[in-house]
Amino acid sequence: MTTRNDCLTRDAQDPLASLRSQFDLPSGVIYLDGNSLGARPKAALARAQDVISREWGKDLITSWNTAGWFDLPKRLGNRLAPLIGAGGDEVVVTDTTSLNLFKALAAAVHLQAQTPKSAARRVILTERSNFPTDIYMAQGLSNWLERGYTVKLVDSVEEIPAAIDADTAVLMLTHVNYRTGYQHDMAALTALAHARGAVAVWDLAHSAGAVPVDLNGANADFAVGCTYKYLNGGPGAPAFIWVPKKHQATFTHPLSGWWGHAAPFAMAPGFAPTDGIGRALCGTQPIVSLAMVECGLDVFGQTSMAAIRAKSLALTDLFIELVEARCGGHPLGLVTPREHAQRGSQVSFTHPHGYAVMSALIARGVIGDYREPEIMRFGFTPLYTSYADVWDAVEILKQILDNKEYDVAAERGAVT
Amino acid sequence: MTTRNDCLTRDAQDPLASLRSQFDLPSGVIYLDGNSLGARPKAALARAQDVISREWGKDLITSWNTAGWFDLPKRLGNRLAPLIGAGGDEVVVTDTTSLNLFKALAAAVHLQAQTPKSAARRVILTERSNFPTDIYMAQGLSNWLERGYTVKLVDSVEEIPAAIDADTAVLMLTHVNYRTGYQHDMAALTALAHARGAVAVWDLAHSAGAVPVDLNGANADFAVGCTYKYLNGGPGAPAFIWVPKKHQATFTHPLSGWWGHAAPFAMAPGFAPTDGIGRALCGTQPIVSLAMVECGLDVFGQTSMAAIRAKSLALTDLFIELVEARCGGHPLGLVTPREHAQRGSQVSFTHPHGYAVMSALIARGVIGDYREPEIMRFGFTPLYTSYADVWDAVEILKQILDNKEYDVAAERGAVT
Repeated sequence: MTTRNDCLTRDAQDPLASLRSQFDLPSGVIYLDGNSLGARPKAALARAQDVISREWGKDLITSWNTAGWFDLPKRLGNRLAPLIGAGGDEVVVTDTTSLNLFKALAAAVHLQAQTPKSAARRVILTERSNFPTDIYMAQGLSNWLERGYTVKLVDSVEEIPAAIDADTAVLMLTHVNYRTGYQHDMAALTALAHARGAVAVWDLAHSAGAVPVDLNGANADFAVGCTYKYLNGGPGAPAFIWVPKKHQATFTHPLSGWWGHAAPFAMAPGFAPTDGIGRALCGTQPIVSLAMVECGLDVFGQTSMAAIRAKSLALTDLFIELVEARCGGHPLGLVTPREHAQRGSQVSFTHPHGYAVMSALIARGVIGDYREPEIMRFGFTPLYTSYADVWDAVEILKQILDNKEYDVAAERGAVT
Repeated sequence: MTTRNDCLTRDAQDPLASLRSQFDLPSGVIYLDGNSLGARPKAALARAQDVISREWGKDLITSWNTAGWFDLPKRLGNRLAPLIGAGGDEVVVTDTTSLNLFKALAAAVHLQAQTPKSAARRVILTERSNFPTDIYMAQGLSNWLERGYTVKLVDSVEEIPAAIDADTAVLMLTHVNYRTGYQHDMAALTALAHARGAVAVWDLAHSAGAVPVDLNGANADFAVGCTYKYLNGGPGAPAFIWVPKKHQATFTHPLSGWWGHAAPFAMAPGFAPTDGIGRALCGTQPIVSLAMVECGLDVFGQTSMAAIRAKSLALTDLFIELVEARCGGHPLGLVTPREHAQRGSQVSFTHPHGYAVMSALIARGVIGDYREPEIMRFGFTPLYTSYADVWDAVEILKQILDNKEYDVAAERGAVT
């Protein structure tokens, strides 16, 4: 079995090990929740100070042009694009994942409605286990479209292929499941959706910066995602939306604000969408939060998604191996797939007292999180998680379980 | 005529004068563009540093609860409420003005559709001179509602009353016009809209923190506004939306994300809106940009809108007096109403070479801005604009005009 010394050796040989020093990680903490809120790139503080003191404080209104504030959504989108297999001028960083999904779904519905025999297609198909806001946004759109759209939920991954049928207008999936860490085969499901006449929309919240993604290679239609998880953009940092070149000319959605206008400062009283990815923009963006996204992307610029994926699989394999070997007598159930191709960059285990065990872990400095029902989530972020972190986290988990160092009585609610 | 010494005397007697020291204003600049981007409260830098270093960097994911990140939209909304005549738990700070207007318009359409004889009402009525994104968002919503809504534009303030008719579902107005500084009579127009069966939605982008607003007193239906202009929240800081208690139980809109859910962490696969103002929320908010909004509101907490209004009228009166007296031989046209009740906190003058003159002013350190056609805008922000600033700005304008220190050849495009 792997020893702690083995882990130290692997850390010494890890080509990504030096990147950890670019993050501010509190001492005494093993942070395994970068799948929820990424750690802070040290550079983010200086960047924010410069935006606040100089760009806002000194240069004031002129910074919209001189500091490039107006262009930030596109500039950051182009920096992010290579991580998800997007082309240049196909991504903007803007608004929230929920809102970008609304735009993508509306555009998908519109796109699908232009195809022959589309009249019968009124279903947005997704998984019951999808992250709830995705389902809610689809329901919100469906309820307001008066042509009778509905959101259909399938109960398991296995049921998805058969569920894509002549009623399906849009297949909307989150690429890596937030709870289980299951990764869909994007290319295969997109191809199946297309073969059956549906449009494919992907949520990359747990994929961007976590696993290699090839949106154009998969011939996907639209995608959205989050910058504050694996991309380390900062709490609630603006999200992104991808509209491929093939759909940009017809891309349309109801959130038609002035940042998506062809000539925003002409102040014309009629909306005319700009060409290209800019039409995914709506209103004025929160510049300080937006600017810090670049600091997270800067770290990715020093490595590759292939290197990140190799370490991610090594870390998650190691965690599974050590938990199963060292905590084997306890009622832990592995939820995340063992098969690499089906795994994101997190590992989830069930435990009948998952909430209490996770609370005990957090009290001991091992920060994961809990999701109903019974699921303890551990996120592995190759830019700053070490092999020794994995060993130490499992050691603490073992102690907590062996010594019953968790308070079942306090068990209620969710660890957020 | 008022002399510069008179202005210095007025500054010495100004009860708001001490507040200027709470803002970071660059030396050599007279900043008359706080109606576009408010100046930086000095406290904003320390606040951002604390959010980034401690709340994000050290406390990481726990800050969603321990630092109150989840509650920020409501907490800031309650701080902002007194400035606009809103009650407690009627305002949230979230998303952008454009998106909040979309929510408000959707809710207004829904509200109106519940009333008797609503079937024929399919018009969202507004002004052609409204800020374009408001018109665009109304068009976006109308185009996607399949019941045939249209956006009707009236060409002048005088035409509004007669235009509110049996077709009008929603009257959507910006309280203070971004270009002219004209202030509508909110109470009278709301009453007229109600009398004729329409719902009244107000945009307070140029009102909040600029003029006294009494939303509940006016019996308005919904309102939105901006925090990065007169409220000094920071570039692109999140906007706000007001939903009065009377409409909260029925308030509904299509942007139904998880932050508006009754139990967001139950992760249920069906949207169920929370009670109260929370249902105006959608997705995860940009925390650093959001947190700085409080620093602007803190300054307002040290004075009153009555005191701010008194100084605002004194500043704008003085500017009009001095420009007309000292630049009288030049082709300047006052656009902003002389009547106090119809004036916001800006003064706009036309000049045939407005773009070139404004560019020359900016080069001399007098920062206003330009809006097509021919309009030079000067914003007056009583928290940090002095009477001497007004005198000096007019002196520089006079020199530029007298000496023709502006480059007509360079005249093109808009100063943003």
